[in-house]
Amino acid sequence: MSADSLQTVAIDLADRSYDILIGPGLLSDDRHFDGLPKAATAVIVTNETVAPLYAQRLKDRIASRYGQVRVIALKDGEAYKDWASLNLIFDDLLGAACDRKTVLFALGGGVVGDITGFAAACYMRGVPFVQVPTTLLAQVDSSVGGKTAINHPLGKNMVGAFYQPLRVLADLDTLDTLPDRELAAGLAEVIKYGPIADDAFLGWLEDNLDALWARDKAALAYAVKRSCEIKAWVVGQDERESGLRAILNFGHTFGHAIEAGLGYGEWLHGEGVGCGMVMAADLSVRLGLIDAAYADRLTRLIERAKLPVHGPALGADRYLELMRVDKKSEGGEIRFVVIDAPGRASVRPAPDEMVRAVLAAHSG
Amino acid sequence: MSADSLQTVAIDLADRSYDILIGPGLLSDDRHFDGLPKAATAVIVTNETVAPLYAQRLKDRIASRYGQVRVIALKDGEAYKDWASLNLIFDDLLGAACDRKTVLFALGGGVVGDITGFAAACYMRGVPFVQVPTTLLAQVDSSVGGKTAINHPLGKNMVGAFYQPLRVLADLDTLDTLPDRELAAGLAEVIKYGPIADDAFLGWLEDNLDALWARDKAALAYAVKRSCEIKAWVVGQDERESGLRAILNFGHTFGHAIEAGLGYGEWLHGEGVGCGMVMAADLSVRLGLIDAAYADRLTRLIERAKLPVHGPALGADRYLELMRVDKKSEGGEIRFVVIDAPGRASVRPAPDEMVRAVLAAHSG
Repeated sequence: MSADSLQTVAIDLADRSYDILIGPGLLSDDRHFDGLPKAATAVIVTNETVAPLYAQRLKDRIASRYGQVRVIALKDGEAYKDWASLNLIFDDLLGAACDRKTVLFALGGGVVGDITGFAAACYMRGVPFVQVPTTLLAQVDSSVGGKTAINHPLGKNMVGAFYQPLRVLADLDTLDTLPDRELAAGLAEVIKYGPIADDAFLGWLEDNLDALWARDKAALAYAVKRSCEIKAWVVGQDERESGLRAILNFGHTFGHAIEAGLGYGEWLHGEGVGCGMVMAADLSVRLGLIDAAYADRLTRLIERAKLPVHGPALGADRYLELMRVDKKSEGGEIRFVVIDAPGRASVRPAPDEMVRAVLAAHSG
Repeated sequence: MSADSLQTVAIDLADRSYDILIGPGLLSDDRHFDGLPKAATAVIVTNETVAPLYAQRLKDRIASRYGQVRVIALKDGEAYKDWASLNLIFDDLLGAACDRKTVLFALGGGVVGDITGFAAACYMRGVPFVQVPTTLLAQVDSSVGGKTAINHPLGKNMVGAFYQPLRVLADLDTLDTLPDRELAAGLAEVIKYGPIADDAFLGWLEDNLDALWARDKAALAYAVKRSCEIKAWVVGQDERESGLRAILNFGHTFGHAIEAGLGYGEWLHGEGVGCGMVMAADLSVRLGLIDAAYADRLTRLIERAKLPVHGPALGADRYLELMRVDKKSEGGEIRFVVIDAPGRASVRPAPDEMVRAVLAAHSG
């Protein structure tokens, strides 16, 4: 790749600042690894799907910086984002006598990123890690914000930490091997940034969805960059998720309930978010915040992105129960991210009967 | 208690600053809980030994601040500082739909404090917690520094986080029920502060050891306060343990090897540290840093504190292997905290043959 096709988003977090590099060919050029700390050992944590595709390529890039490069390939899927997988990493690190300078590389999607980030946060109370996201969702969502976690049988992402990577390398070439269903799931998180923060970006997405579907690198680069910029702007004002940052969870309250209700892994996270955005937009209409035409416009874009717009028949009681245990609820009150106006969102409660009406219209 | 018998050590960590309150009667006076955040739920994490002694007393103090106060009594002992206990806490919190404002109270010794602190660090990526240490070791050691962790079969404290409490309440009355063996274990960490940071404090301890053994509240208050002050001074300069802070591990490299080699729980942590200090002092002599008379003086004080000064017969190879996997080792090189001069310590490597000579003299 030529140097000028490389995009960079700088994440400013004082002594934990880092860069997100976005572009094709990142895993084919040693220079993008310059400046990472040297150590006796690096450990690439990946999964069984991604390992045969990209583990060797990454290993080749970093072999000169580390005496030993280990590869841990976890089983693929949200169902494996659990204690057992986390312990596999700890067992390997301790079995190989890895010290606290060991650098972890998360090579894969959001599951690999979240679990590797959490392992890095906890191993010996913190070792450095680098993110190499290979899905669109991970490139736009996990790259910014420092959220790491594993799931618990009673809730998603319930055990985790805020922990920042040293660098994020979003190689757009890795999206060439991404299944369509996962590309769609990533688009859900991209689309999200329109209604909550940038109405013009929603328009851009309507114009460029076909190019994104064709995996056009320039279109992808802009979508990833703009998503990371918006997320960084939001997170920069609220690193620990006390207020504003919660708007990033647009569609997630309903979405998490769908994921948990079906059992993790049945729907992809982005699919839950896509459908959840339809529900949250409808809730916004019912709360009198936006007109139905805007919710319809958003729903059409979500449909064009080949995402589900109708939720499974869990029953309204079960949806409400699952949303109440969500970690964004407070004292049993569910807090929904709603659209206040095109490009602006806030967090607020809603009457149960209104939520039931939304669920009746968009699930079952 | 009268207000003026209350000692306070202020820990200055910007937005994570907190106070350590030290004195008798803290668990009998609501005022010491003023200013803690209110929430729907508080959870007291304790163990089966401490629960019948103090859980109700703590519950009575905080019942007015929380709609619900839950008590989780873990099994007692270092052997239970593991994933299974940590998950018991998460299971309980999620089963009760505890939200991210839930306040955890760690009521017990170092094991309870470490595991509760780590649970607080991870639950929903961080909930507030308060330490109520009921052992001398926990009062002087866990009160400052924000270290939380659980053990792994391959190493002690290998999985954890740096996470600060909202407040520490060190009620000296709780030491009245502390077994002698555990009082001695706590004295090991108190004694440590003399050789590494305050030679005058070593003299004070030689003069006041009998009063400490008699659990004299004034003597205990000074010993706890001075220990916390010294630790805070060290940690304040090096919160994340990159350099100076490592001197707090005086005696710990050998001590951890003893604990791990025998299986956690056989020796108390403080017993390992006591014996480990004897070994580390001898190593300092062999490195030509201090004279043998100072090491003898320290050994006599450790003996007077009824701590072991001779390690188990693990064999030198096993000691070295265990110390190499210790998280303070780097690239397989063991780093020892040694005394440079009375009241001053540093971290350095030592030749294997010298370590073997120390082990030959003080173990087996």
